[in-house]
Order: sequence, then C-alpha cells, then structure tokens
Amino acid sequence: MPSEPTKELITVPNPEPGRDYEVLVETDEMTCMCPVTGQPDFGTVRITYVPDELLVELKSLKMYLWSFRNEGAFHEAVTNQILDDLLRATMPRRMTVETIWKVRGGIATTVTASHP
Amino acid sequence: MPSEPTKELITVPNPEPGRDYEVLVETDEMTCMCPVTGQPDFGTVRITYVPDELLVELKSLKMYLWSFRNEGAFHEAVTNQILDDLLRATMPRRMTVETIWKVRGGIATTVTASHP
Amino acid sequence: MPSEPTKELITVPNPEPGRDYEVLVETDEMTCMCPVTGQPDFGTVRITYVPDELLVELKSLKMYLWSFRNEGAFHEAVTNQILDDLLRATMPRRMTVETIWKVRGGIATTVTASHP
Amino acid sequence: MPSEPTKELITVPNPEPGRDYEVLVETDEMTCMCPVTGQPDFGTVRITYVPDELLVELKSLKMYLWSFRNEGAFHEAVTNQILDDLLRATMPRRMTVETIWKVRGGIATTVTASHP
Amino acid sequence: MPSEPTKELITVPNPEPGRDYEVLVETDEMTCMCPVTGQPDFGTVRITYVPDELLVELKSLKMYLWSFRNEGAFHEAVTNQILDDLLRATMPRRMTVETIWKVRGGIATTVTASHP
Amino acid sequence: MPSEPTKELITVPNPEPGRDYEVLVETDEMTCMCPVTGQPDFGTVRITYVPDELLVELKSLKMYLWSFRNEGAFHEAVTNQILDDLLRATMPRRMTVETIWKVRGGIATTVTASHP
Amino acid sequence: MPSEPTKELITVPNPEPGRDYEVLVETDEMTCMCPVTGQPDFGTVRITYVPDELLVELKSLKMYLWSFRNEGAFHEAVTNQILDDLLRATMPRRMTVETIWKVRGGIATTVTASHP
Amino acid sequence: MPSEPTKELITVPNPEPGRDYEVLVETDEMTCMCPVTGQPDFGTVRITYVPDELLVELKSLKMYLWSFRNEGAFHEAVTNQILDDLLRATMPRRMTVETIWKVRGGIATTVTASHP
Amino acid sequence: MPSEPTKELITVPNPEPGRDYEVLVETDEMTCMCPVTGQPDFGTVRITYVPDELLVELKSLKMYLWSFRNEGAFHEAVTNQILDDLLRATMPRRMTVETIWKVRGGIATTVTASHP
Amino acid sequence: MPSEPTKELITVPNPEPGRDYEVLVETDEMTCMCPVTGQPDFGTVRITYVPDELLVELKSLKMYLWSFRNEGAFHEAVTNQILDDLLRATMPRRMTVETIWKVRGGIATTVTASHP
Repeated sequence: MPSEPTKELITVPNPEPGRDYEVLVETDEMTCMCPVTGQPDFGTVRITYVPDELLVELKSLKMYLWSFRNEGAFHEAVTNQILDDLLRATMPRRMTVETIWKVRGGIATTVTASHP
Repeated sequence: MPSEPTKELITVPNPEPGRDYEVLVETDEMTCMCPVTGQPDFGTVRITYVPDELLVELKSLKMYLWSFRNEGAFHEAVTNQILDDLLRATMPRRMTVETIWKVRGGIATTVTASHP
Repeated sequence: MPSEPTKELITVPNPEPGRDYEVLVETDEMTCMCPVTGQPDFGTVRITYVPDELLVELKSLKMYLWSFRNEGAFHEAVTNQILDDLLRATMPRRMTVETIWKVRGGIATTVTASHP
Repeated sequence: MPSEPTKELITVPNPEPGRDYEVLVETDEMTCMCPVTGQPDFGTVRITYVPDELLVELKSLKMYLWSFRNEGAFHEAVTNQILDDLLRATMPRRMTVETIWKVRGGIATTVTASHP
Repeated sequence: MPSEPTKELITVPNPEPGRDYEVLVETDEMTCMCPVTGQPDFGTVRITYVPDELLVELKSLKMYLWSFRNEGAFHEAVTNQILDDLLRATMPRRMTVETIWKVRGGIATTVTASHP
Repeated sequence: MPSEPTKELITVPNPEPGRDYEVLVETDEMTCMCPVTGQPDFGTVRITYVPDELLVELKSLKMYLWSFRNEGAFHEAVTNQILDDLLRATMPRRMTVETIWKVRGGIATTVTASHP
Repeated sequence: MPSEPTKELITVPNPEPGRDYEVLVETDEMTCMCPVTGQPDFGTVRITYVPDELLVELKSLKMYLWSFRNEGAFHEAVTNQILDDLLRATMPRRMTVETIWKVRGGIATTVTASHP
Repeated sequence: MPSEPTKELITVPNPEPGRDYEVLVETDEMTCMCPVTGQPDFGTVRITYVPDELLVELKSLKMYLWSFRNEGAFHEAVTNQILDDLLRATMPRRMTVETIWKVRGGIATTVTASHP
Repeated sequence: MPSEPTKELITVPNPEPGRDYEVLVETDEMTCMCPVTGQPDFGTVRITYVPDELLVELKSLKMYLWSFRNEGAFHEAVTNQILDDLLRATMPRRMTVETIWKVRGGIATTVTASHP
Repeated sequence: MPSEPTKELITVPNPEPGRDYEVLVETDEMTCMCPVTGQPDFGTVRITYVPDELLVELKSLKMYLWSFRNEGAFHEAVTNQILDDLLRATMPRRMTVETIWKVRGGIATTVTASHP
C-alpha cells in the first residue's frame, strides 16, 4: 500500500460537465525545503476550480504535493508550478491555487495564483 | 414514529411567493460511503435557495439526506445529485448546494453547485 | 412596569432624515412555537434598515417580538410577517429581516427577506 | 405528537449501575419569566450527574424545562428547584445544576448548585 | 423610572439557605476615573459568592457600580472596596470580586480579592 | 496632565495628501447616557476615512468622545453628530462612522452613517 | 482494500511499558442509531489511556467504531460498552472514554466513563 | 550572522512574470517610536502586491522594517513611506500596505494605502 | 512628557495590606534583542503577585520593560531578572513572571518563574 | 548556513539554577513518516521542563526534530524517544513531552510522556 511520491496527477471524469460548479481541496500538510536556508518550510495549500471534463483524483494530488517534501522551492515559484501542473492535468474552466506559509523570520507569506 | 430513509422530497406551499427571499438550511450530520475505500465519509450540507411556489419540508429533507447513509457517493456527484433532486422537487427561483467534507488523507474537500 | 406583549410597533422621528444611514437591531432572544410539533423554537432576529422619517422604538420592538412567544409560526412565514409589519410601521427606505433558528432534527434554518 | 409541558420527570434504568460514570445534559433553550419585570428571561441549563439506578429520560427533561416557559422564576430559586426535582426523580450519586442567564441591565448571572 | 446612582446595596432573602450554592454576576460595563490622569477607565466586574441568608438585588448592584462612574479609583482599591461593601451588605459564606481593566499604556490589569 | 473633555476636535496636516488612503480609528470605550432611562450606555466607535488635507489628532478625538460621557444621546442621533462634527473638522474625501452598542432589553444596536 | 466494520479490536505491543504515559485518540466521526426514534445520532469519541503492555491499533479502532453505524445504541450504554471492550482488549493501567453527542430536541449529551 | 537594520530593500526576479498573481507578506513584529510621546508603538504590517519583474526579498524586508525600531514615525506617514519605498524597489503592478497599531489612549488605528 | 526607559521600579503603598489579594499586570508589547542573532525578539509579559506593603506603579513598570528594548537578553535569563527586580522592589507575598515569546525558527518559547 | 538534521542535542548553562522555573518550547512543524503506510505524518511537539544545570539550545532542538523528517516513527515510540533523548542531554529536574498528531483515518492522536 505505501506509495511513492510522484509529480504525476491522475484525473477522473467530471460527473456533471454540463454545469459550472466549484471544487475546493485544501490541505494543511504541505512541506518543502527553503532553497536559501536549506531548512524545511511548512504551509497550507488551497486549490479551488471549476472542472471542465476532468476532476483531479485526491490520492494522486496527495502524492503530487508529497513530491515537494525534499525539494527546494521558493513560495512564489512552487505556487505557480502547482497551478501550471494542475492546469495541464485537468484543463479546468478556471482555477486558483493559494499557498499559506508559516512564519519565517517573523514574516508569514501567502501566494495566490489564478487562471485565467 | 421511526421513519425509513427515502429519496422522496416533500414540499409545502411558499407562504410569500410574491417576494424574493432566501432560505438557508444546514446540517453537519451528512454521511455516506466512499466508493473508493468503502468506508464512511462525513460532512456538512448547506442549501440556500429563493423559493418560488414551494418550500422543502424539513423532515423529508432529513430523510432524504439520511438515504445516502449506506450508499457509495463521490463528493462531486452527490452534490450535483442533491441540487438536481431539490430543483426537481421545489423548482426554486435559484438554489446553491454546498457540501463540506472532513479530511481524508490530509485533504478536505468542499463542493459548491448552483442553479441557474 | 411589567408590560403585555403586543403586535403594536411604536415609532419615533428619525433625527437625520436628510442622510441615508443604516440601523441594525439584533436579538438572540426570539422564541415561538413550532406549528408542526407544538413545541418551542428558538432563534435570533436581525433587522437592518435605512430609515426614512421614522425609527422603530426599541421597547415596542421587544414587545412585538415577545408577542410571538406562544404563537405557532413557520420560520418562513414569521420572517416575512416581521418584515411586513415593520415596513408598515416605519416605511423605511430599505429593510432586511434575517431570522436564524436553532437546530431541529439536526437541521438549522436561516430566512432572509428584504424590501424593496 | 405535540406534547404538553409538564413538571413530571420520567426515568429509565441505568444500564451500568456497577460503575460511577458521569452524564452531562445541556440545553441553551431555557426560558422563563422574570418575576420582577414580568418579561421573558433566556438562558442555558447544564446538568451533570453520576447516576445510581436511574437515568433521566431526555424527552421528559425537555418537557420539564419547557414547563417553566410561562412561569415567573428567580434565577437562584429555579436553579435549586431543578436540582431538587431531579434529585427526587433520579436519586443520583451526585449532581450539579448550572444555569447561565443572558444579560439584563448589563449584568449576566450564573447559578451553580450541587448535591451532596 | 430613571434612578440615581448610589452606593446603597439592597438585598433579598436567599430562597435556599440550607444549601451551599454559588452565584456569579458579571458586567462588562464598569467605568470609573483614573486618579492619576483624571481620564476614564473601563473594565469588567465579576462577583462570585456563596450566599448565606441574603442575595444581592441586581438592580441595586447596577446602581452601586454606576456610582463609581465619575469617581477617581485605583484598580486595587476599588476592587477591595467592592468586596468590602458587598460583604457588609450580604454577609455571604464566601465571596470573590475580580476586576479586569482595559489596556492603559500597553498594560492590562486584573485584580482578584476574596473572603474569607 | 489631566485634561477636560471637550467637543473641540484638533487636526494635523495630512502627510500624503497626494494619495487617497484610508485611516480607521476605533475605540471600545464609548459611553453616554440613555435619554429614556437616564442610565449609562456602552459601545464601540469605528471611524473610517480618506483624509484630504487634515487628519484628526487622536488625543483630541479621545477628549471629544469623552465629552459624551454624561450627556443623554440617542444611538442614531449621536452617530450622525459624530459624523457631522468630524466632517466639519477634517473635511475628508469620504468618511464612515459606525457605533456598536451593548445589549439593552435583549437588543443590540449598530448605527452606520457615511459621507458622501 | 475496503474493509468490513467489526467489533474485533487489534492491539500492538507498547514500545515503552516501563513508563506510565498517556495516549489520547479522538474522532468526531462517530454515528449510530437512536433506539427510541430509529434515526441516526452523531457524536465525538475521546479515548484517553495509560497503556500497560498493549496499545490499541488505530485502524481496528476505526473499524470498531464504524461497527456501531447501523446499530441502535443509547448514549450511556454505548459509552460503557466502548470502555468495556477496550479494557478487555488492551488491559490498560487506566482509561477514560468520553462521548459527546450532537443536539437532539435542543439537548446535547456528554457521557464520561473511567476505569478504574 | 547578526545583521544591521537598513532601509535598503533587496529584490529577486519574479519567477512567473507572465502571470498576474498576488503575494501577501505579513508580520506582527513592527515597532517604532511615537513622535509625540517618545514612547514605543507596536503593530502589524501587511503588504499585498502583484509583482511585475521583481519580488521583495524577505530577509531584506525584515531588515527594512527593523530600521524603524528607534525612529519616530506617525502611523499615517510611516505607512505611506513603506508603500513608497516598496514601490520604488519592486515596481509592482499593484500594491497595498496596511498597518494595524495597538491601542493607545483606548484607540486603535489602522492605515491602508494602495498603488495605483 | 517623553520619558527615558530605566530599570528603576517605583512603588506605591498597598491600599489593603490586611488582605491577601492578587494583581495581574500583562503587556503584549515586550521586545528585546536576541543575543545569538542580534535581531529583535517580541513577546508578552504576565506578572501575577500578592502584594505585601507595596504595589508596583504601572508607568514605571512600563519604563522598566522598555529598558530591555535594545539590550540582548536570553528568554530564560530575562524572565528571572524581571522576577528578581520586581521581588527586590515590591517584596510581595508571592509572585509569578511569565514571558511568552513569538516563533523563532518554527519554535515558540514560554518561561515561567515564581517566588517563593 | 544550511545545516544538516542531526540527533545531537546541544545544551547551554542554565542562568538561574538556584530557582525551579519552567520552560515550554513548542513547534507545530513536526513531521515524520508513518511506518505502516509509508506516508508523511504531521504534528505539534510541546516540551515543558524545569531545568537543572542545562537548557536545551533551540537551534539544535530544531535540527533534532528535523532529523525525524524522513524516518518511520510510531506516535507512541517517537514521543518516548524525544523524552529519553532530552532527558539524557539536559538532565532536567522534571520534563513532559506532548505530541499532537493530525487526523489519519478520521482519528487524531495525542501522546504525553513525563519524567519523573
């Protein structure tokens, strides 16, 4: 059962493509490495989208986010990468990715990127 | 007095059809089965609508939501089904169904569908 | 000093009719009887309005809401009745009445009616 | 189905009299009349007890608390009366009744009575 | 109906002197003048007591607390004075007075005095 | 150092008149007298404005609000008076005054007035 | 992967039996049927224990709690049964089971049972 | 490792200049001196911006905010200065600076300035 | 009026030395320098004491805490120093000093020292 | 500057060994791998201790907790290991380690171990 983290995102068919509706998936279990200090960062990821033909499958999303665990990632870059990877995989009608990072040096950072 | 869960939704006449007003009914006692793992999911259902000629009767709504208790249901599909069933039963001027599901695998999901 | 509950609403002159401004009065001490079960319901009433020539006098509003204490009242009907009675008494430029009812059978209900 | 409020408290057998365990029942739907002003008071009732041979049946407890709805009752007296009535009906190993009343004249009151 | 603030505390008989029980009265509408700056202070007063033969009457307590409105009062002195005045008036089995004062110069103060 | 309360509002020059920006000043230490009951009312005052050439000086604002301490004032009238006095003193590009009053007779009141 | 609910509790060896330490496991996903009304109840279960030689395995605990899903169960009886079943399976040095049930008829119930 | 506070803001290239996205950086560790009383003020700074070619580097932002520690600064002036300095350094597509200052004399102040 | 920060603590006579009562003074405006990184730390200080003959005067306490602003101070050492300085100045019957420091490197620290 | 995670804990001398006082260090950035599923777990670690001659140095504590990042660890075992490692390194007068783990399969776990 233990799976390996992977950047591959799996999709499932949208059961109601005839209607514009919104899906929000959120986890407070995001972690990656700070490229400057080489130390772990922790945060929350919120993905909101209106699906077209495809939904993102949740277990693969979990594996995908896990794949950043031991990678260096700037907050702004990783947020845009998550958005790009999810756009490519699910081709939604619209999507927003928000990452909320815990305090470093007294400063908390939130990055929000949307398409279109 | 103990009733059986059923998908039948009962309606009562809107006492004020001459005015557009909004009704919100909300329960944090929604549960169904995950079709992937076969295990129970738990969540909250919020239904907001502007009635036309009919209101949904609350006890039948409770029975209706109870009918999902031992059925497998994907979050996105069940949300759209609840909206469709309520639209068919009450023919409201507008309606939104929001389902908020507890964390599975570290990820929480919210689905929001509206008509029109 | 003890007064009797009454449906009569008393008004006082608006001290600033030359300006559109908003008044919100709110109580979490609303109770009436459920017409279906014959048992007490409890809720909150929030009234927001832009007065024209008249303000609603607060003690009479309290007596007015008290008058529902032992009357049967559906959530949707009583909300529209409160709005209608307050419109008739104070003729405001605009008004919203929101009633928020405690859980019955696992379901909480909120009704919001506005004029115009 | 509509029942009448009554001061009669019904009991059911304790399924585990061989063990000291605690039951807490709580409602925020208590209301009675202020004997001084003749106007409604609102509050919360919390009953904590270690049952001996009997549990209080919840529907009869609801009817019992409802019976105060149109009676005048001082906060201190009604709290002690609820304790006395429940002691008489359920003969628990120990019991505490706490009533928490909403603000009147800017002052909130809480009364807590225990046996033994 | 408008009354004058006064230091006189009125009592009513304890309806249940045979039992030790606790009464908590609390207001967040305390204000007096700072004797150092001559400017208003604001705070909360919480009085907890086990009555013996007498309860403090709430309207007179409100008048009593109001009587400090335009008097200069150090936090520590006024807390002990309230305790002394209430002890003298109600002769309780035990009593605690807690005053919680809003921030002055970045510092918040709470004073708690008990008898015996 | 002890100053006297006064209705005079002092202003200071806006350091950045070339930019529209917003200032919010807020205090939960407002008190005045109820003209009906002659007893104290307590509340919060929030003033939001876009300054033009002048800012309101905070110490004078404190003195100004203090000046209502022993005056009778209806919630609606005092809110409009504060707005009028501040408009006259600071001539802002726009301003909103919101007053939030504590519960009286179970009812809380909020008044919001804006210019223009 | 989908498992069947079962009352069998699996244990794993305590990695530190030489030290008294406390484990708290908590879920807000408990549901069973009300034996009186035949309708679903929802609640939270908190289990606190000092293990001796055995820990309860979490997946089997989940299956165990799931096994109540379609069984009728009084709040007091089910709490004592969970305690008894866990005592039998894990023979802890001490254990407390607390169940917190959502509002029914305006009344919320919490049951707390401990051993020894 | 200990650095000196400085007004110099360092930038890094925006990894995704082709997309409009938003960055929020926030610290509750702002302090400067009140120019009127000569005593310390404390507050929170929230900076929201859509970057163009440059991001503000967080460590230099920390040093920049630190540089106000022993400088006198009016709330309105320092907010506009932070906005001006960040505009000059990062030339964002749009930016908002919000400063939220702790209570002085019972009054809390928030200043919000935006570009364009 | 602007004063200089100083380690001198001023006292005033206890108005009620005949009674053991508790005073809590608390500020969330503590700041000093980290001796390791040379950068500012921020925290909250809570001082609880039962006075004997002397109270600490609040303005001098504010000046005293301000005196740490530009000094290097380890969390554990500064907490014990504040306790020692206050013990020496006020000779209380008992005293506790608690300092609560904001997150550094993902870790928050609280230090609590008491006498006797 | 980037350091490597390590199980070595560094200590610094207690500046006040003559007094029993308490230190609490807490981080919500703990993560390790579940030995059963091979997937990441997330949690909070709270360490409370009365130091004797030694304090734990915070940066080495951070590195120590980081060293679990890619190790498999049962909740109960890792809590006892952290306690054992900290006891060996700092030889405190007493110490408690509490770990609070996020929901897995609907169940949250907290483990608390103390010495002596």
